[in-house]
Amino acid sequence: LQTKLPAVGTTIFTVMSTLAAERGAVNLGQGFPDFNCDPKLVQAVTDAMTQGLNQYPPMTGVPSLREAVSAKIGSMYGRRYDPASEITVTAGATQAIITAILAVVRPGDEVIVLEPCYDSYVPNIELAGGTVVRVPLVPGTFRPDFDRIAAAINPKTRAILVNSPHNPSATVWSRADMLRLEELLAPTEVLLISDEVYEHMVFDGDGHQSAARFPGLAARAFIVSSFGKTYHVTGWKVGYVAAPAPLTTEFRKVHQFNVFTVNTPVQHALASYMADPTPYLELPAFYQRKRDLFREGLARTKFKLLPSEGSYFQCVDISAVSDLPEAEFCKWLTTEIGVAAIPLSAFYGNGFDQRVVRFCFAKKDETLRTALDRLARL
Amino acid sequence: LQTKLPAVGTTIFTVMSTLAAERGAVNLGQGFPDFNCDPKLVQAVTDAMTQGLNQYPPMTGVPSLREAVSAKIGSMYGRRYDPASEITVTAGATQAIITAILAVVRPGDEVIVLEPCYDSYVPNIELAGGTVVRVPLVPGTFRPDFDRIAAAINPKTRAILVNSPHNPSATVWSRADMLRLEELLAPTEVLLISDEVYEHMVFDGDGHQSAARFPGLAARAFIVSSFGKTYHVTGWKVGYVAAPAPLTTEFRKVHQFNVFTVNTPVQHALASYMADPTPYLELPAFYQRKRDLFREGLARTKFKLLPSEGSYFQCVDISAVSDLPEAEFCKWLTTEIGVAAIPLSAFYGNGFDQRVVRFCFAKKDETLRTALDRLARL
Ligand SMILES: CSCCC(=O)C(=O)O
Ligand SMILES: CSCCC(=O)C(=O)O
Repeated sequence: LQTKLPAVGTTIFTVMSTLAAERGAVNLGQGFPDFNCDPKLVQAVTDAMTQGLNQYPPMTGVPSLREAVSAKIGSMYGRRYDPASEITVTAGATQAIITAILAVVRPGDEVIVLEPCYDSYVPNIELAGGTVVRVPLVPGTFRPDFDRIAAAINPKTRAILVNSPHNPSATVWSRADMLRLEELLAPTEVLLISDEVYEHMVFDGDGHQSAARFPGLAARAFIVSSFGKTYHVTGWKVGYVAAPAPLTTEFRKVHQFNVFTVNTPVQHALASYMADPTPYLELPAFYQRKRDLFREGLARTKFKLLPSEGSYFQCVDISAVSDLPEAEFCKWLTTEIGVAAIPLSAFYGNGFDQRVVRFCFAKKDETLRTALDRLARL
Repeated sequence: LQTKLPAVGTTIFTVMSTLAAERGAVNLGQGFPDFNCDPKLVQAVTDAMTQGLNQYPPMTGVPSLREAVSAKIGSMYGRRYDPASEITVTAGATQAIITAILAVVRPGDEVIVLEPCYDSYVPNIELAGGTVVRVPLVPGTFRPDFDRIAAAINPKTRAILVNSPHNPSATVWSRADMLRLEELLAPTEVLLISDEVYEHMVFDGDGHQSAARFPGLAARAFIVSSFGKTYHVTGWKVGYVAAPAPLTTEFRKVHQFNVFTVNTPVQHALASYMADPTPYLELPAFYQRKRDLFREGLARTKFKLLPSEGSYFQCVDISAVSDLPEAEFCKWLTTEIGVAAIPLSAFYGNGFDQRVVRFCFAKKDETLRTALDRLARL
């Protein structure tokens, strides 16, 4: 059978989670919380199901949820999106991103990705018939290299994918970065796919700089976010896209023929739960405390800590601990030390190995402490 | 903004449901039940959420659900699918179908659809870069025309989409039909995408003839089904694909980068709920009674009844009632008579109008009676 995606194996997240489960390792690999969500959210889903809200919702999403998202974006970033024509509920952020790509990338179009990048971007572009243009973030700091981005843009460039807070590096684009991007794209028709799934996990500096804050970016952007990450329910698979009406029109043409729509009771539950902004307003402090706890422990190991400005990830340089390639090291760490991590090489097309691995600290304090105890043995 | 899907508007189902809601019409258009699911199923989702089963499940689906699906297919159709390598849980049947198409259709490949057909098939093929080859079902009877199918097959043919029980016509392929298809495909490498979402709603004749029953078909088939339709939870957006391991491998490469995975608590709930086969074994009788109630009422109108052998749809010829084109008639019926229906022309690329519209009878008896009272005025 001829394959459409010859280079694709099983995602690293599945590989490492499977190995961690087999070996009884503490799983700091795949990014998901090991604690439960707010029981109020569970109750709200139950209420919706009991009320019989179990049939197809509108294709674009339950209206009250689209309104809640619009209100949130308005209050956080000062841009108003019309819930009717500019917000669409998706089956998670991954489905939002592939849908945006399928909707706008034509065969032969170039799409810029900034490496390291999330592992779905490249196959998504390939499935749309587009050409992937890989631009590295600055090695060591993972900051955007605007000269290289500028050099990659040409009349064939259809879109650029940007992800801040950044998975896997945990860096966050500053206001100056976003202004620079806005300036750089201004003379072009390049679209922006802005993956902001960790928007509510920014710890220091000038806060999350959503593309929604920058008119020149928002006008050309699909802004993607994830309820799963914000509300500790990664398994519910629900996210959204905010985009100007003409972009949303094209997005929905594909969306309606991809998943058509998204779990109804979950949408109703999120809509009512979002009436109170407290959970996402308190999220930065919640995760900053875990980050600090985890970093304090890691500081006592031979790992060299990289900054963690946002997301629920912490990267470390392993040079002083091991000579193994990153991927081998992660397997060894899982099997022998009992802590799973993700190699950064998995986020590069060419497997670039810079001696850095990623931990996820979205875990109970006791889980983090168990992991730290094991890592202290190194 | 240049569009990838210029011909695509809003699906007819959304258009008619919106109009029905605006006009307070009885909505027999879009296919979904107006009664709730089994409270046990709601309880099972609540239990899973409360137990904290709210994070990513395995990419391929929760193991116990894949096992339950395999057991069901085995007992119903006598073929064993390996849950590990041959069953994948999807975000509904629509997502299963686009994923199969993206996984195997290469630019330039031809894909055969039998018209009238579900409105996602054609845009799905276009997004994959494939060429749509439309073969009509026999006008009037909606039976497969194997001579025309045979004539459409050539070395460029990559796949054929078959849907039985058939939406919108409510016809069901017989064992002889399936054998004929098996014979016809035998000398080719054409893949089969078998949309069997109404598999548990077959009323008379020789029962549902799943492609799983026919070794020559099963070996080349993606068999797609829907929990939403079987368990009265269309809004939960969960289905599955069964396919031989090499096909499943390609399917999962795309699936993991489309939605990655599907709502965790819903999967656990379905897995435990499926331990008892009673609900799906009783479904044919449940819907046959509704079909008969609805047909008895319709027999007293000027509509000419077409057979309804399977699915939850009933088609009628409107010639004796109106001279309006089907689509106009459906709008008129919704607005003036207060009953929404779907025009069959929406299932044809060229809008072919054969004076037939589709009603959905997955409704409470009282809803059907209200609709019938209104239709009796015609
Ligand atoms: C979809 S599984 C991967 C979860 C995740 O976003 C990550 O670990 O980077
Ligand atoms: C996805 S909405 C359409 C539901 C359906 O299958 C139908 O009405 O034909």
